[in-house]
Amino acid sequence: MNDKSDCVFCKIVAGEMPAKIVYESETALAFLDIGPVAQGHLLVIPKDHYSRLSDMPAEACATLAADLPGLARAVLTVTGASAFNLLQNNGRVAGQVVEHVHFHLIPRKAGDGLGYRWEAGEYPPGRDVEIAEAYKAALAQTAG
Amino acid sequence: MNDKSDCVFCKIVAGEMPAKIVYESETALAFLDIGPVAQGHLLVIPKDHYSRLSDMPAEACATLAADLPGLARAVLTVTGASAFNLLQNNGRVAGQVVEHVHFHLIPRKAGDGLGYRWEAGEYPPGRDVEIAEAYKAALAQTAG
Repeated sequence: MNDKSDCVFCKIVAGEMPAKIVYESETALAFLDIGPVAQGHLLVIPKDHYSRLSDMPAEACATLAADLPGLARAVLTVTGASAFNLLQNNGRVAGQVVEHVHFHLIPRKAGDGLGYRWEAGEYPPGRDVEIAEAYKAALAQTAG
Repeated sequence: MNDKSDCVFCKIVAGEMPAKIVYESETALAFLDIGPVAQGHLLVIPKDHYSRLSDMPAEACATLAADLPGLARAVLTVTGASAFNLLQNNGRVAGQVVEHVHFHLIPRKAGDGLGYRWEAGEYPPGRDVEIAEAYKAALAQTAG
């Protein structure tokens, strides 16, 4: 067990802090967000402590994600929402408050005022090719 | 191959539409979002067509998610961002435009004005318990 003594979510996993738990497996936990942006807003976490998605081994992320479709269906069933967002914030600047990987499942309804702030930009000519090449180089390095 | 003839992302998978592809596996593709909200904004999709996360078999979701940590690390390396959001919209009301499951990896920098619209609410006394029980019942049903 990869545990961090001052982490609120590790305390929930350890049963040292209360939470409205709705699902538990050997490796994962799902519970109600204590400050929901919509009724039925769920959090899904790995029991092991990882600060960010980018810190997770591929296998741990895969195992956690296997639970997401079923939990998403439960969100639709329980809340009657027609749509939902899956959101996962990494780093303070990205809105992460608790530094233990967590996926938000947020039920959505028309006119709820939620959602991601979206202003689509575009790349200056050639810049997309440069960035794509940089990605390929970075990914080749880690795969190597 | 689970393919849908009028789906833009299926056409990209089939090589019938161009995209700045940065990563490809047997089952997944990652490419630059054509309307980036930040430079280096990536999309990660399963090659098979599923409209929503809630339509995916657990195994397909797990396989796709195994690629996310490595791609997230590449986002940080390539863009120099200190943080990032993983976002996945399901349904028009939730901001989904292309109806083929896609994960957004969005690099974040301080003051970029991005992020999820967040107004934390709270449950009236007892309502959280009711909702948690409804979740447990819904999840017990699908597990049964």
